[in-house]
Amino acid sequence: MSFNSSDFVPTPASIPPQGTVLRLGERKGLSPVNHHPLNPLDFLLRAAQVYPDKLALAHPDVVYPAFYSFAVWAQRVQNFAYGLIQNGICPGDRVAVIAPNSPLIADAHFAVLAARAILTPINTRLKPQEVAYILEHSGSLLVFIDHEYMHLIEGTNIPFIICNDTGRAGDPYESFLSNGRIFSQENGWQGLVLESDENSSCVLCYTSGTTGRPKGVITTLRGSYLAAIGNAFEGQMNRDSTYLWILPMFHAAGWTYPWANVFAFATQVTMRTVDFPRIWNHLLNSGVTHYCGAPTVQIGIVNDPMARKPPRPVTAIIAGAAPTPHLIAGLETKGIKPIHVYGLTYTLGPFTRNYEQPFWASLTLEQRAKYLARQGHAFATAQEVRVVQQSGEGAEGVKLTDVPRDGKTLGEIVTRGNIVMKEYFRDPAATEKAFTGGVFRSGDLAVMHPDGSIAIMDRSKDIIISGGENASSLAIEQELATHPHILEVSVVARKHPKWGERPMAFVTLHPRYAHVWSGRHREFSDDLKAHAKSRLPGFACPEWVDVVPELPKTSTGKILKTELRKIVGKL
Amino acid sequence: MSFNSSDFVPTPASIPPQGTVLRLGERKGLSPVNHHPLNPLDFLLRAAQVYPDKLALAHPDVVYPAFYSFAVWAQRVQNFAYGLIQNGICPGDRVAVIAPNSPLIADAHFAVLAARAILTPINTRLKPQEVAYILEHSGSLLVFIDHEYMHLIEGTNIPFIICNDTGRAGDPYESFLSNGRIFSQENGWQGLVLESDENSSCVLCYTSGTTGRPKGVITTLRGSYLAAIGNAFEGQMNRDSTYLWILPMFHAAGWTYPWANVFAFATQVTMRTVDFPRIWNHLLNSGVTHYCGAPTVQIGIVNDPMARKPPRPVTAIIAGAAPTPHLIAGLETKGIKPIHVYGLTYTLGPFTRNYEQPFWASLTLEQRAKYLARQGHAFATAQEVRVVQQSGEGAEGVKLTDVPRDGKTLGEIVTRGNIVMKEYFRDPAATEKAFTGGVFRSGDLAVMHPDGSIAIMDRSKDIIISGGENASSLAIEQELATHPHILEVSVVARKHPKWGERPMAFVTLHPRYAHVWSGRHREFSDDLKAHAKSRLPGFACPEWVDVVPELPKTSTGKILKTELRKIVGKL
Repeated sequence: MSFNSSDFVPTPASIPPQGTVLRLGERKGLSPVNHHPLNPLDFLLRAAQVYPDKLALAHPDVVYPAFYSFAVWAQRVQNFAYGLIQNGICPGDRVAVIAPNSPLIADAHFAVLAARAILTPINTRLKPQEVAYILEHSGSLLVFIDHEYMHLIEGTNIPFIICNDTGRAGDPYESFLSNGRIFSQENGWQGLVLESDENSSCVLCYTSGTTGRPKGVITTLRGSYLAAIGNAFEGQMNRDSTYLWILPMFHAAGWTYPWANVFAFATQVTMRTVDFPRIWNHLLNSGVTHYCGAPTVQIGIVNDPMARKPPRPVTAIIAGAAPTPHLIAGLETKGIKPIHVYGLTYTLGPFTRNYEQPFWASLTLEQRAKYLARQGHAFATAQEVRVVQQSGEGAEGVKLTDVPRDGKTLGEIVTRGNIVMKEYFRDPAATEKAFTGGVFRSGDLAVMHPDGSIAIMDRSKDIIISGGENASSLAIEQELATHPHILEVSVVARKHPKWGERPMAFVTLHPRYAHVWSGRHREFSDDLKAHAKSRLPGFACPEWVDVVPELPKTSTGKILKTELRKIVGKL
Repeated sequence: MSFNSSDFVPTPASIPPQGTVLRLGERKGLSPVNHHPLNPLDFLLRAAQVYPDKLALAHPDVVYPAFYSFAVWAQRVQNFAYGLIQNGICPGDRVAVIAPNSPLIADAHFAVLAARAILTPINTRLKPQEVAYILEHSGSLLVFIDHEYMHLIEGTNIPFIICNDTGRAGDPYESFLSNGRIFSQENGWQGLVLESDENSSCVLCYTSGTTGRPKGVITTLRGSYLAAIGNAFEGQMNRDSTYLWILPMFHAAGWTYPWANVFAFATQVTMRTVDFPRIWNHLLNSGVTHYCGAPTVQIGIVNDPMARKPPRPVTAIIAGAAPTPHLIAGLETKGIKPIHVYGLTYTLGPFTRNYEQPFWASLTLEQRAKYLARQGHAFATAQEVRVVQQSGEGAEGVKLTDVPRDGKTLGEIVTRGNIVMKEYFRDPAATEKAFTGGVFRSGDLAVMHPDGSIAIMDRSKDIIISGGENASSLAIEQELATHPHILEVSVVARKHPKWGERPMAFVTLHPRYAHVWSGRHREFSDDLKAHAKSRLPGFACPEWVDVVPELPKTSTGKILKTELRKIVGKL
C-alpha cells in the first residue's frame, strides 16, 4: 500500500471511546435467539470488531486526503446515525445523498441503515430539475450534498448538510457528525435500535431512464445483505483485497459493493472522478485487486498510456454490455482478469455471471470471447434466470413459456428471488407490471444456449426489424467490434423505404488506428461493411456507417441510443 | 486430479433426461417474486446448471469406486426425494441415515430436504442401544443404512434400505433410487414442492454427549444455508477447490460442509474411514485443497510417514480444541494452512474463527500459536459472540453481564443469530434452559481478550478448583503440550486432601521420542512437571502425570474426560 496516511488525524468525534475495539453486547430490537434480521450494517460492526485498525476507507486523491480504519469508520457511521435521529429522521424516512465517490456516500450506505431510514443516492450528473423531481418524489427529508454539486439543489426547501470533503474540523459534514456524537451521549451501538424486519426498505435508487421520468426502485435489507455476500464470494474477495471505486457508488447502490467490500474486510479506495492516470496509479502502487466498470470505462483503462501489468492480479467486474475480444485481450495482457456479470438496478446489481468453463482453455481468444460475452447463469445468491415468451393477456391470463435452449429463440429475461427489488416506490401499478406472471420482467431480450447460459440480444426496443427479420443490434455491434480498428460501436434502426428498417452503425476509431483512416472515413465505412458481410446475415449488415469522434453516453457510461436515434431521425 | 473415473458408469436411473442440463423453470410452492426461502438444496440445483459435467462427488477408495458429476448427482438426489415420497415420507417426517462418509450420506443431505423431510444422521460409532434410542426418540420413519452397520439396527421395526456402497445396479439403495425415478414419471424438479418456510427444520442431529442420553438438536434451512455460505467464504473455496471428507459427515451435519462445498462448486472426496496413508494419497495426488478435522486427527496426519508438502496449498479447518505450536508447525512445514474455528452442534458447526492479524508476521511460532489458539471472533454469517456472567435467578430474573476484556475474567460463551439451532427436539424445557437470558448458552467457559477475541478456558465442569483458585484444565493442557516429546495430553481434577482438587495429567508420548523414555516414565513425569513449573502458576501445575499408550476418545475424536475421571476416581 502506497498511501501516505500517517499525516491524517481523524476528528476527535471520529475516535471510538476506550481504545479501538467495538463492543456490542446486548442490542435493542432483537428477539428470537436463533433468528437475526439480515442487514448489511452488521458487516461494518463485525469488521470493526475483527480488524479495528485495518485501513477500511482511503480517499487519497484530494486536497485533504482521508484514511479511516474500520474502528474509526464505524464510529463515524454511528455518529452519522445519531445525527440523523437528532435531526428528526425516523425509521422509513428518506435521506438523500448527492456526492461523487467519497467517504460521505460510503458512510451513508451504513449510517442511514443504522438510523433505520432509507438511503436515496442521487446521480450527480443529472440536471437540477431532475434532482428536484427525485427529491420531491422520494420525499427526502434531509440532503447530504458534496460542495461541488450545490448547484443541483439551488433553491430547495429541504434541509441540507454540505460536505466539503475534507474530513477536517470546520467541514459542515464533520460538524454534523460531531454533533451526532454529542447527541449520542456515548450510548454507542447499544443505543441504536437494529431494524427487526429484514424485509424493510434499504435503498431507494432512481433509474436514469433514457426515456420518461426517473423511477424509484426500493430494495430490502435482506436482498442487499445476500447480494453483497454474493458479490464478495463471486469476486473471491478477502481481507487482502483492495477495491477501487470507479463505478459511481450512487449507481444502483454501487452494485452492493459498498457492503460487499466490508463483508470481505477489504480496503476501499474512493476517487471523485474517473481519471485514468489516477486509476493506473492505484492499480500499480496501491495494491488494488478489484474494481467494477462498464466496458466503455474498461476500454479507457486498457488504452491509457500508463497501462502496464500491475504487481498484483486484478479482477475487473464488467457489466452493462458484453466485453469484446479486443477488450478481453487488452485486460488479460495487463494481468486483469475480467468477470462478466449482468444486472439491473431492479436486481441490486449483478444477478447473473458468466462462469468460465474448463474447455475454454483450448479455445482461441475470439472463440473464448464469444462465450465470455454471454450473460451466463444465475449467480451465487440469485435464484434461477429464465428466458420466456408470454402468451395470454391481463394479470390472470398471462402464461410464460420458457424458450427452447437453442441459442436462437428470443425471449425476455425474467428472474425471481431475494435479490429482486421490493417495489417501485409509490407506484403499485408499475410494480404490478414489472412482476407480471409472478417473475421480475427485465425487459431485456435474450436467447438461452444449450448449456443453460443466457445471452442478451437486445432491449426490446433495440431490435431492428429489417425485411421482417429481427436483427439484434447487440449481435451486430459484437460482430462489428471484432474489426481491429474499432474502439466503440453502437447500432440503431434507421427507416428504409424497402426493408422497413435497416441497421445504421456509429463507430469511434481506436486511437492507434485513427490516423490510418484520417480523411478516409468513407473508405473505412466500406471496409467495415465488407467485414460485416463476412460475419453477418444480409439483413443484419449495416446499411450505413458513420465514424464519429465520440458516442453519446449516460452518466453511468451507457451509450445513449436515444441520442443516436434522434440523429438518425433527422437524416 | 488422479481419479481414474473413466471406468465408472452411473446407473441408467442416475442419468438426467435430455442431455445433462438441469432446467428448473417454474417451481411449486414459491410465491413472492422478491422473496425466496433460503435452502441449501438450491446450491445443488445451481451447480447442476452451471457446471453439469464437473466432478461433484468422488468415492474412490472402495471395491466399487463411484464418481458423480453435478448433473448426475442432482438426478440421483431427485430420484431419492421421489423415492421418499413414494415410501410415504411427508414434510416434517424424520429420515435416518447410518453411514460412513460415502455417497449415501452426501446424497441424503440434499434429498431429504428435497422431500421436505428432516435428516437424522446417526453416529456409526454408537452402540446398538444408543441407535435404538435415537431412532425411537426421533420417530424416524425410514432408515438408510450402510451394509457395514447392519448390526446397529438389528431387530428394528422401522423400515430400512440397505446401501452396499457400490453405486451399481443390484445394490438395494440403487434400486430405491431407480424406483424413485420411475415413480417421478419424469416430472423432474418441477414436480417437487420447494419448502416455502425457510425456518422449517433441516437436520436433527444427536449430540454424542459424554454423559446422559443423546439430545436431539434441530437446525433450520435458513441457518444451514447461511452457515454453509459462511464456511465456503471463510475457507475461500471456489470451483477449483477439492474437499476431502475426514470429518464424519454425520457429525453436526459435517459442519454444513456437505452444502458449503456445493455452494462453491467444489469437488468432494469421501473416504469411509480415517486412514492416514489414504489421506496423504489424496493430499498428494487428488488435488485436495480443503479438509476439516479435530487436532487429534491433524496430529495423525502430520506425523504420518507419507507426510510431505502437497503440490497445492491446503487449508485445514481445525475445531474441537486449540492447535498446539507443535501441530501448527507440523502443518505449516507441510504447506497446510490451519484455520482455527470453534463451534458446536447447536451452532451448526463453526460460529467463531481465529482471524490472523497482520502483526503476527513478526512473532515467533510459539507466540503466534498462543494467538492462534484463541477461538477468535464471530465468523462471516454468525452474529456477535459474548462472554458473560449471570446474576439473578429464574427466567425473569436472569441478567447477563459481559465480562471485562482483560483476558482473565471467566465467563460463559453465549451467542445468538441465524446459525443457532432451532430447538432441542421434543424437549421445550431443555430449549428454554439453553436459551436462558435471550442468548444461546454454550456452557463453555472463556475469557475475552482486549482485542475482543475469545479464548476458551474450559467446559464449566472441567475447571479444577485447587486451593480456591480456578485452574483451567485447557490452559494447563496447552502449556504441557509445548513439551516437545508430548503427542497428546488431557488434564482432569483429582481429589486432594489439602487443596481440595489438584490437576492430574494423562499424556501420550510422540512416537519419535517414546523410545527415549522407554522404561523411564517416572523420569519423564518429573521432566514434564519441571517444564510445567516454568510456565504455570503453582496451583495449575499437575501434581500427577501418567504416561499412557493412548487417550480414550469419543467417536468424533474428542478426548473423553469422563473416562479419565473414572480412572482418577478409583485411584
